[in-house]
Amino acid sequence: MRTQVAIIGAGPSGLLLGQLLHNAGIDNVILERQSADYVLGRIRAGVLEQVTVDVLDEAGVGERMHREGLVHEGFDLLWQGRRHRIDLKGLTGGKSVLVYGQTEVTRDLMAARQRSGRTSVYEARNVAIHDFDGARPWVSYEKDGVAQRLEADFIAGCDGFHGVSRASVPRSAITEYERVYPFGWLGLLADTPPVHEELIYVNSPRGFALCSMRSRTRSRYYLQVPLSDTVEGWSDQAFWDELRRRLDPAAAEALVTGPSIEKSIAPLRSFVAEPMRFGRLFLAGDAAHIVPPTGAKGLNLAATDVKYLADALIEHYLERSDAGLDHYSERCLRRVWRAERFSWWFTSLMHRFPGEGEIAQKFQEAELDYLVHSEAGARTLAENYVGLPLDFGLAPGR
Amino acid sequence: MRTQVAIIGAGPSGLLLGQLLHNAGIDNVILERQSADYVLGRIRAGVLEQVTVDVLDEAGVGERMHREGLVHEGFDLLWQGRRHRIDLKGLTGGKSVLVYGQTEVTRDLMAARQRSGRTSVYEARNVAIHDFDGARPWVSYEKDGVAQRLEADFIAGCDGFHGVSRASVPRSAITEYERVYPFGWLGLLADTPPVHEELIYVNSPRGFALCSMRSRTRSRYYLQVPLSDTVEGWSDQAFWDELRRRLDPAAAEALVTGPSIEKSIAPLRSFVAEPMRFGRLFLAGDAAHIVPPTGAKGLNLAATDVKYLADALIEHYLERSDAGLDHYSERCLRRVWRAERFSWWFTSLMHRFPGEGEIAQKFQEAELDYLVHSEAGARTLAENYVGLPLDFGLAPGR
Repeated sequence: MRTQVAIIGAGPSGLLLGQLLHNAGIDNVILERQSADYVLGRIRAGVLEQVTVDVLDEAGVGERMHREGLVHEGFDLLWQGRRHRIDLKGLTGGKSVLVYGQTEVTRDLMAARQRSGRTSVYEARNVAIHDFDGARPWVSYEKDGVAQRLEADFIAGCDGFHGVSRASVPRSAITEYERVYPFGWLGLLADTPPVHEELIYVNSPRGFALCSMRSRTRSRYYLQVPLSDTVEGWSDQAFWDELRRRLDPAAAEALVTGPSIEKSIAPLRSFVAEPMRFGRLFLAGDAAHIVPPTGAKGLNLAATDVKYLADALIEHYLERSDAGLDHYSERCLRRVWRAERFSWWFTSLMHRFPGEGEIAQKFQEAELDYLVHSEAGARTLAENYVGLPLDFGLAPGR
Repeated sequence: MRTQVAIIGAGPSGLLLGQLLHNAGIDNVILERQSADYVLGRIRAGVLEQVTVDVLDEAGVGERMHREGLVHEGFDLLWQGRRHRIDLKGLTGGKSVLVYGQTEVTRDLMAARQRSGRTSVYEARNVAIHDFDGARPWVSYEKDGVAQRLEADFIAGCDGFHGVSRASVPRSAITEYERVYPFGWLGLLADTPPVHEELIYVNSPRGFALCSMRSRTRSRYYLQVPLSDTVEGWSDQAFWDELRRRLDPAAAEALVTGPSIEKSIAPLRSFVAEPMRFGRLFLAGDAAHIVPPTGAKGLNLAATDVKYLADALIEHYLERSDAGLDHYSERCLRRVWRAERFSWWFTSLMHRFPGEGEIAQKFQEAELDYLVHSEAGARTLAENYVGLPLDFGLAPGR
């Protein structure tokens, strides 16, 4: 088989890239190790920046998102038992975020992929990528026990942190930066109405909590837990009890509980691999970088990578210019590091850090005190949360 | 001997407190372990916040400060070889700082003390404070080999980090928070014109540097150095050579060198002792807290402590209310922690941290990148640098 762009991974990054390329008439094949159902079963964040909404619109998959997504113009920051509203709209000159689950984004992209008629191979086993440092890269895999070969002009590695793409790059060609945090997030999904119409980010003496949602009838809650905890050790009842203890009395009172649909513990990690291009291999999304989920930058960063990559490939095929491809890595990484910095900072601000010393805790409290009382401080939080503009730092003047 | 307020320490804190009390007709005696010349010989920072200028004016010692001090409406932040101006005035709605050396402040306060006719005892040996948890505190010391006793209503501990005041508090009554930084500042004072009319804070791959000044003809420069370095190991020539390497070409070119008047290495420390009141003992300034010098908050915090303490004592004697004394510690500490947080943050932003890992360095770069391109980011730096208003966080609304 031969295509123009071989896309490894059918998560939102790979599907979105495939769609943008398809719309421009560029042939592409998506290879996915798992089944479609497995991909849809992965629970991820659900806060979309305007930039991400714009890319999904550009891809032509925004119709249901706009119908069902919830526009959030602010969130609450709960600290010392008091909620402080971060007025995203007011602080950013009118910007907001859209709450729409990653699962729904993936579903919309899958449907569009189906309609496009382009090839997607699910349950592609033993995917391996070859010769991407030369002019003729190719991908080998097995489907239903039969060895296959896919030749392409380019390979897009959209296969996540544990995928084969980054792992195929020689160690000497790549620099990795990593921080692992000394706690995890225990998440619970339930078909209950959210405790509050906006998100609540909680800094409590008992640890971080987040009251999030997927829709007006589906809630997503998180608790900071020690990495040694197990899902089995947390009954639904224990989760709800602990969440209530971390909330203010009004929220604890308003909390509607119910059986969990899903419950899992995720570690928190900051990770960046540099560069994001290796010859004819381009990494995008989690394959190249991971953020801790505080601030919900993961999917949004992936969308920007994909946008830059799609533009660059379209430029290559349609305008015969490789400028976009040549600048891909640098362009992405500038935005990536900004979001990594923000995600690390927001994580540091909101969690308890065992073993960091009491003065670190006091600095954290002083920073929260500053943020909730300073308009400039609140604005730094808001403008990063809604997403810095794509031309941030490139515009004339400031 | 008997007085109303016994003040331990004749640095700027003690002298300023004595002056404010004197102006209100409250008797006070200052005891200082060192000689007046020794106190004047200590080289300290020289950037005064408006709040500090106001307190010095209130004390009636602002005349020469206004004549000789240099109003600075901004400073430069040098990063990646490029200088970015932080427009303090523009970013804070018209605020600025005043560059006027702590030595000069001390000199003006000493002269005022002389005029006041109140007692100051220099070279008071073996100062010890007693019974401050009761109604009749007193101080013992020796002067010229003769044991002395000073009885007072209150004791003000203005005797710095290593002073006897905080050390006299039972360990069980005090909580101390501390962070020591893994580097020091090598400072050099020279009678040369400053390299630039405003300060330059430098983040360079070779470490932090600061181009500061005391006047239009006296420069103060600093270099981040390992704690293992010694002053003897740094010739003037080596200092100037290293400073030049950390500057941008234009500044390196403009740098006027000359023989050092003073050269010393200071460690960097964040330190807070809570509370700041113990019965009839009140700690103020460095006796209660230390900030790393990045951001020049040390003297400014001391001035606010003293202002709060003077107001509280005046309230006690003139209005027969102890409300100010009762709130002294809490009131100071709120401001102290804000400045501690800022000083720690600005220190973290500008220095190289050995052993912190490469991702920490990347976060630092991303934060600088954000700050110099975001108006809100720059404003958080500017508003903390000029000093948060005394009523910060207490005003209605934000």
